[in-house]
Amino acid sequence: MTQELPKLYSYWRSSSSYRVRIVLAIHGIDYEYIPVNLLKSEQLEDSYANSTNSMKQVPALVDNGKTITQSLVIIRYIEEVLAKKLNFSPIGGNRYNFLKKSFEADEIAEVINSGIQPVQNFAVLKQIANLGGDKAEWGRNTIRNGFVQIEKLVKKSGGRFCVGNEISVADVCLVPQVYNAKRFGVDMSEFPVIAKIEKNLTDLDCFKKAHPDNMVDAVQA
Amino acid sequence: MTQELPKLYSYWRSSSSYRVRIVLAIHGIDYEYIPVNLLKSEQLEDSYANSTNSMKQVPALVDNGKTITQSLVIIRYIEEVLAKKLNFSPIGGNRYNFLKKSFEADEIAEVINSGIQPVQNFAVLKQIANLGGDKAEWGRNTIRNGFVQIEKLVKKSGGRFCVGNEISVADVCLVPQVYNAKRFGVDMSEFPVIAKIEKNLTDLDCFKKAHPDNMVDAVQA
Repeated sequence: MTQELPKLYSYWRSSSSYRVRIVLAIHGIDYEYIPVNLLKSEQLEDSYANSTNSMKQVPALVDNGKTITQSLVIIRYIEEVLAKKLNFSPIGGNRYNFLKKSFEADEIAEVINSGIQPVQNFAVLKQIANLGGDKAEWGRNTIRNGFVQIEKLVKKSGGRFCVGNEISVADVCLVPQVYNAKRFGVDMSEFPVIAKIEKNLTDLDCFKKAHPDNMVDAVQA
Repeated sequence: MTQELPKLYSYWRSSSSYRVRIVLAIHGIDYEYIPVNLLKSEQLEDSYANSTNSMKQVPALVDNGKTITQSLVIIRYIEEVLAKKLNFSPIGGNRYNFLKKSFEADEIAEVINSGIQPVQNFAVLKQIANLGGDKAEWGRNTIRNGFVQIEKLVKKSGGRFCVGNEISVADVCLVPQVYNAKRFGVDMSEFPVIAKIEKNLTDLDCFKKAHPDNMVDAVQA
């Protein structure tokens, strides 16, 4: 009996999907990539919204008939269930739990996960535009405000990565958020520590493998 | 040498602060309550924003000279550090780790923590009003959309509480979010399972103890 691959519902540019792809790449886990085109509102269609994620957002992971939404929960599931089952990690040797656990890492991840990204995501920006607001300015301000806090945090905790020299959930959240920051035109010279850590991370193969431009549903600019 | 009590920076009506107060009450942990008046913009003052939380949000916990922000991280700190040190739990007997751990609980908590609350919090509503939007309508729609998903999740996982009959982080997030829902005029008859679970929870002493109206900075309507 062959086991089905886990399915990842993703959109190439979704920063929350990008987080999950990084962790899958870190652990070298094979998965089926199912694109959900946010620009075509596929996340609002009944086939997705009713059966997979009625929050009408990506990502969602389906494994063994079980559907899991919310990127940080999916990441924990990958670490505790999928990677444990494989019982190897291409980078971390025989430690299935590859991501460093610390309160500092969680705090940085949460500033992004609940402080920045939800306020600048696709659905909110659409509503801002409906109110006559400037989407780009809204996104830029939201990210900038959050990065002020993160720059302070990584100044204290950072080494090669966000917390010392081991990869943590903070790094997994940071890289996709910097990707968004650049799209919105945030001036990264204001955040030299974040910029340096992001460079160290995006040089790694597992982060490259998960990059939006390398997804099947990527669109050339 | 007497140990200083942990300090909680809180605003009585802040739903994220309310989550943390519930967990402190569950474990019977004494703490110093420091009100930060959001209506008077005290969260923007240098004394708070620079030294405690440059996200300019409550809650923040200061313990042993260490500052922790982000409610779900504070909750984990309380469980893993403060309650462990006490080594007793008034409800959970000798299990210091009182909150049920499960992916289902985390998923419900995250829908609230990153899907609903950040989009209807104080700072965002202020910006919506600046754009000429209807704050109450924005808040109501945001909560309603999220509750559609949570109602589905608790229909599957729920018992007396969000996940079976043990209290989890989902319950700790749900009660403050329902408190907000009622303030925004969300019609809770659309969400009978959520409403029933919320009733079971708010009947418990530790949830009553943490209620906004019981805080020193509460204001009579």
